[in-house]
Amino acid sequence: MQAQRLNLMLDSVSRLARRGAMSNAANLLTKLRPVDIAQILGQLPNHDSEIVFQALVHHDLDKAAEALSEMETSRSVSLLTTLNRDDVSRLLQELPSDDATLLVSELPEDLRDELLDAMKLEHSTVVNELLGFADETAGRIMTPDYFALDEDVTVAEAINELQRRSEEFEMAFYLYVVDSRNHMLGVVSLRQLLLNSSSTPLRKIMIGDVIKVTTDTDQEEVARIVATYNLLAVPVVDEENKLAGIVTVDDVLDVMREEATEDIYALAGVEADDRALGSSWNSVRRRLPWLMLSLGAALIAVAIVQYYVATIESSIWIAVLIPVVATMGSNAATQTMTVVVRGIGLGEVGQETTRRVVIKEALVGLMNGLIIGASVCLIVAVWFGTKLGSMWFGFKLGGILGVTMVLSLVVAGALGTLVPVLLKRFRVDPALASSMFVVTFTDVITFFFYLGIATLLLSHFKL
Amino acid sequence: MQAQRLNLMLDSVSRLARRGAMSNAANLLTKLRPVDIAQILGQLPNHDSEIVFQALVHHDLDKAAEALSEMETSRSVSLLTTLNRDDVSRLLQELPSDDATLLVSELPEDLRDELLDAMKLEHSTVVNELLGFADETAGRIMTPDYFALDEDVTVAEAINELQRRSEEFEMAFYLYVVDSRNHMLGVVSLRQLLLNSSSTPLRKIMIGDVIKVTTDTDQEEVARIVATYNLLAVPVVDEENKLAGIVTVDDVLDVMREEATEDIYALAGVEADDRALGSSWNSVRRRLPWLMLSLGAALIAVAIVQYYVATIESSIWIAVLIPVVATMGSNAATQTMTVVVRGIGLGEVGQETTRRVVIKEALVGLMNGLIIGASVCLIVAVWFGTKLGSMWFGFKLGGILGVTMVLSLVVAGALGTLVPVLLKRFRVDPALASSMFVVTFTDVITFFFYLGIATLLLSHFKL
Repeated sequence: MQAQRLNLMLDSVSRLARRGAMSNAANLLTKLRPVDIAQILGQLPNHDSEIVFQALVHHDLDKAAEALSEMETSRSVSLLTTLNRDDVSRLLQELPSDDATLLVSELPEDLRDELLDAMKLEHSTVVNELLGFADETAGRIMTPDYFALDEDVTVAEAINELQRRSEEFEMAFYLYVVDSRNHMLGVVSLRQLLLNSSSTPLRKIMIGDVIKVTTDTDQEEVARIVATYNLLAVPVVDEENKLAGIVTVDDVLDVMREEATEDIYALAGVEADDRALGSSWNSVRRRLPWLMLSLGAALIAVAIVQYYVATIESSIWIAVLIPVVATMGSNAATQTMTVVVRGIGLGEVGQETTRRVVIKEALVGLMNGLIIGASVCLIVAVWFGTKLGSMWFGFKLGGILGVTMVLSLVVAGALGTLVPVLLKRFRVDPALASSMFVVTFTDVITFFFYLGIATLLLSHFKL
Repeated sequence: MQAQRLNLMLDSVSRLARRGAMSNAANLLTKLRPVDIAQILGQLPNHDSEIVFQALVHHDLDKAAEALSEMETSRSVSLLTTLNRDDVSRLLQELPSDDATLLVSELPEDLRDELLDAMKLEHSTVVNELLGFADETAGRIMTPDYFALDEDVTVAEAINELQRRSEEFEMAFYLYVVDSRNHMLGVVSLRQLLLNSSSTPLRKIMIGDVIKVTTDTDQEEVARIVATYNLLAVPVVDEENKLAGIVTVDDVLDVMREEATEDIYALAGVEADDRALGSSWNSVRRRLPWLMLSLGAALIAVAIVQYYVATIESSIWIAVLIPVVATMGSNAATQTMTVVVRGIGLGEVGQETTRRVVIKEALVGLMNGLIIGASVCLIVAVWFGTKLGSMWFGFKLGGILGVTMVLSLVVAGALGTLVPVLLKRFRVDPALASSMFVVTFTDVITFFFYLGIATLLLSHFKL
């Protein structure tokens, strides 16, 4: 829907809600697409959105369930917890099993068991099965509602079957061909069904070399495969090559969005469920640990400066330049780390290419370091040389900072590459942990370089 | 393809290339999927990849064109420039028109005109038309090869037509219904064709309320719409509602990837075509301007410290704490900015919600500032109080830093929200420009707070 129309609708709904005309508000919402309902509920103040959603559940359960599927998980979970158990289990039964699984997995454990007991057996069995797969794997995000037929079935029979069971397969883009024990044999696109004569058996038109994933494939890898091979859905098989489910491209779009947010956030020290429109208290809790770690890192730098206090006492101008020392190395490290982490995320940087990337980044650090070092040396020499009336003093000061910059940027390049690559090898999320390590190490080493060189020079000349 | 198989293939191809057996290498490649060829070419050293690709062009033009479509644009452009003009124009003619347009737009201008002249007229006309749309809009990324029929056509006729012209429509998921002057009337999914009786006219089964974009819609918005409404393709219309083309979900996946990389990079001061496996010189050129800007920002901080040099001279311990001053404000600002920029990117933060977000973020800054400020005050008081034998002195020192932290984090929260929102309103990419502005401003203000408060205190007590 257009932004203007959405805003108009938002106004009407919130006016009705404020007047207590809940069923009118719910009635208005049922005329919209589920995703638009989700957006409007997301923009209403929390309390309003809860009561309007309750009204919607009683007014049109189907629509409420569809809207729930379109919300961010944290949002839908918080709405679910405001409903009574009965409504929750009715809603969950309306959801596709992958969406129901996602929601159930996020609910508090006691509530979860109670709900699964209240749901119809066939539905709760599927959800329980999906819950058995690890978080963020193909098994967890797949839907078991795929369209599979035997290899001897003909095109006409397949079309008949699809027509008969069309309700079940909302997102059937491909027909999977399996043997009697559900082993994956091949795939036929719906277009192929349209393009071939009705008596052709599926065996003849199927593609045997199917691109597939297994239930334990990481969701990021699933997204990469779907994007790389331009698929509309990818089949998920178990360890015996039996078809277990499919992951469709619309879920992949959600995964990509989610993973991109995670990467962007991780590099800035923000956790994934911190949202611009979320609660302040949530943001405080999410960001404080990282700020505390930063504070720890900064205090390590303070300890180094303190250790060299005699040096800065004997020449205060050494202290004046500290802002440059405290920021340049970490900025260069962040640049390198970002490129490397993104390269790992996109599958470009792997074990084979590590050495090449480390050498390249150290070289980039060296070149940038030489240019930045020379510039800062010149600027400081002229600035402080003029100010203090001694070009020789200015030049010495600039020289210390310049040499520090060269060393610091090389270290930034090397650490910015090595740390994420090593973390990845030990299966730690490279984006999450790198930022803190790399920046702290680079800063600490830079301070040592700077004050170490200054102290060394001081012992030879008076600065 | 599995990573291991891909590596084996990479080894074989590079061994053949080193031995000069180019046509064998090309022959091996033709047996692979286009995307796998693209990946192997991407991992080979530049020179090898160029000559192998040349061999592939002569060996199997079709496959070479398909592989070219799957590469990153910067990579395919650099490969194209190593070929002779004739090969380039033959290759471009094999590409779908949206891919050809993308490549042509990235070529040097003189080469571009020459190529368009050399291409077949019908092909170059389409490319020229697409080039007329602005960069990163729906018009630029759409393909004009859509499948559209008149509203009176029946299901059986539609299926016939699809079968007859199946070569043209590689990615036809929907059939668009248009009037005689190509105005968009509705849409029918291919599944609907399968599910309805053959004599039904399209008019009866089409959905009239079509989700569509216009040729000048931003590609990020196109991606958001396709993801939000779970579409396989979105039709693009001109200002008169005439169908101009479609954007398919596989292109949307590419756009999302590209835009996520851009956002991640922009926040760290890295430009979009800086790649982990790219050339060092390219990375130096891309990162240096941002490092120079950082240096400028750091030197502004130096100027402030220098202005207050009397303060830090009279108590050197003020200088020792500068690393905390130089990093905490900018870290908090980066956190806020990241959440806000991502919120803008995902369409959650808009004009209506700005005030709410600013107040929320300033509040988060205040709370985090109070906690960080109190902690740092306590730590410094104990640490330096003990070290220097005066708890009162330690407490004053800690107090200055603590108060600075509170003020700094509130400013960080407010600036981190306002700057990206304002930039967005002036249609500047919020991710790109925010990072520099926000961090610099926050740092400068923090230094003023810190040294200003210290100077004020000094004029009343001896520190």
